[in-house]
Amino acid sequence: MNQIADQRVVLSSRPKGVPRAEHFSIEECIIEGPKSGQVLIKNEYWSIDPAMRGWANDAPNYLPPVELGAPMRSFAVGRVVESHHGDYQAGDIVTGMFNWQTYTVCDASVIDRKVDDGDLPNSLALGVLGLNGVTAYFGLLDICDPQEGETVVVSTAAGSVGSVVGQIAKIKGCRTVGITSSNEKAQMCVEQFGYDAVIRYTHDNVADKIRQYCPNGVDCYFDNTCGPISDAVMTHLAMGARITICGTASLTDWDPLPIGPRNHRQLLVARARLQGFLVLDHRERYHEAFAQLATWVREGSLTYREHILDGIDKAPAAIQMLYDGTNTGKLLVRVPD
Amino acid sequence: MNQIADQRVVLSSRPKGVPRAEHFSIEECIIEGPKSGQVLIKNEYWSIDPAMRGWANDAPNYLPPVELGAPMRSFAVGRVVESHHGDYQAGDIVTGMFNWQTYTVCDASVIDRKVDDGDLPNSLALGVLGLNGVTAYFGLLDICDPQEGETVVVSTAAGSVGSVVGQIAKIKGCRTVGITSSNEKAQMCVEQFGYDAVIRYTHDNVADKIRQYCPNGVDCYFDNTCGPISDAVMTHLAMGARITICGTASLTDWDPLPIGPRNHRQLLVARARLQGFLVLDHRERYHEAFAQLATWVREGSLTYREHILDGIDKAPAAIQMLYDGTNTGKLLVRVPD
Repeated sequence: MNQIADQRVVLSSRPKGVPRAEHFSIEECIIEGPKSGQVLIKNEYWSIDPAMRGWANDAPNYLPPVELGAPMRSFAVGRVVESHHGDYQAGDIVTGMFNWQTYTVCDASVIDRKVDDGDLPNSLALGVLGLNGVTAYFGLLDICDPQEGETVVVSTAAGSVGSVVGQIAKIKGCRTVGITSSNEKAQMCVEQFGYDAVIRYTHDNVADKIRQYCPNGVDCYFDNTCGPISDAVMTHLAMGARITICGTASLTDWDPLPIGPRNHRQLLVARARLQGFLVLDHRERYHEAFAQLATWVREGSLTYREHILDGIDKAPAAIQMLYDGTNTGKLLVRVPD
Repeated sequence: MNQIADQRVVLSSRPKGVPRAEHFSIEECIIEGPKSGQVLIKNEYWSIDPAMRGWANDAPNYLPPVELGAPMRSFAVGRVVESHHGDYQAGDIVTGMFNWQTYTVCDASVIDRKVDDGDLPNSLALGVLGLNGVTAYFGLLDICDPQEGETVVVSTAAGSVGSVVGQIAKIKGCRTVGITSSNEKAQMCVEQFGYDAVIRYTHDNVADKIRQYCPNGVDCYFDNTCGPISDAVMTHLAMGARITICGTASLTDWDPLPIGPRNHRQLLVARARLQGFLVLDHRERYHEAFAQLATWVREGSLTYREHILDGIDKAPAAIQMLYDGTNTGKLLVRVPD
């Protein structure tokens, strides 16, 4: 195919903070077919991730901001339609940064992974067997380094990363305490994800509950919020606590930085470690995590939940759902054929 | 000796924040001589350290607060006068938590170290060859883990810990940038302690100067302040930066915690590590540090400055000098015979 009729969702204006529906528009366009070294991919699912807020904003980040008028940057899973690269052939299922496009033409180097778990749904390659899963895996095991019998606290405990963190911590013999919003999610945390205790930050005094549920202090804290919830957890750290900063969902803006209590004294007294974590740094070891996560899924010791929005017209309003807390599982947009 | 006429400086009222002269009083008293397993020590110098603020305040800390009416807790160096313990004999020079007393009777276990650097002044056992030295040694080498060619930033750069940190970083082949207050201290930083660049937080825009002096970002930051100076350093972290929280001099009160910019986003973007450090955790390895530091002092690659107050009546107002920045070297009180 030399020219392909494509649909894309582009960033049409620059958000300050959370990107919302009005910052995007849907366009029809014609794209050039793949050249030597390139592949043509028909996307099946787009992944909706908190990181997209950072990509859409014009602020220092680990990737340059998405340009206005360009398709929104997004992880996706799709099927190779046409390949001009020896490593791939038509029919392969692949994941990578394919953006909010129905069809993507890209260099083969853009592909992160050829999905070979044919017995499992392709969509899992964006969730529990994708970056969410490896984020939980390395962010918990490498940065927090939980030991058997320790207490692990997880914010956004029912989320696509947090739910995996909690379950891996249980597999490793830890006691787990999840922090989430609604009663529905709290129930999910206990019944599906096996948390030993759950705190609803919308109803509970988080600091009081942390003291109640973590009588020996918090050994590990996997944080996706970095706001008042974290402040509450910080009041009850165990000696030598390790904290992974995986996301900053509570900081709705960071220019200027929001203010909060200075936590240095708490870190000093507990000789605790607060460390920023980006899963992309661990690329070399993804294969190790994918293999282990798939094994746990097949064994039934690792479960997941998906929240699938049907159709590309649902994409513009999808990112804000993560911040409004209205999704009830790994958020995906299904891209129709 | 069964009874000894002693002088002591006691904590007479509870400070909120920095302990000042009015919180102490000087008392004469009679103490019982040493029993079996105990030693009698005539103190030569009391050490004045920022940690004393924490000990005097009634707030969570790594040691219980000093009781009202008790002699102020303090590190000291002294000479054994009488020993009822096999490890020590009259004439030994020893360091430990001997408190603000002229004579101290204590269990031998209270002694931290028998000083065997007879060729060097005894007072150094409270500074560059004491806890200040080992704090710099482990806080820099173990927590920051500086690599040759990296940029190391030190707050309270001319202080008794900071000056040693800066010099060890130079010995390890790093570029060093010190942050201090006065012109006099800035000059000391460059001329005596070998810093490559100095920032005076009282005159300079610290963030601007950090960008100027650390063009590739801050790889290591040894922090004794945890306030606005740290905020400025945090704006320009290098990828994978390591930060040692050694002291919190800028937080004059921590109940409630003062507020400041939330630094999580900066830590996340740089995948940086912020870690609380207490030298007492490294006791088992002090001997390694003392030996290396003494070697560097004898070689002349590690220099020091002392600021000695003469007489115990100078003790009550001594701690506040650390926070007012009026000392010009390791602050000590000489205890007359």
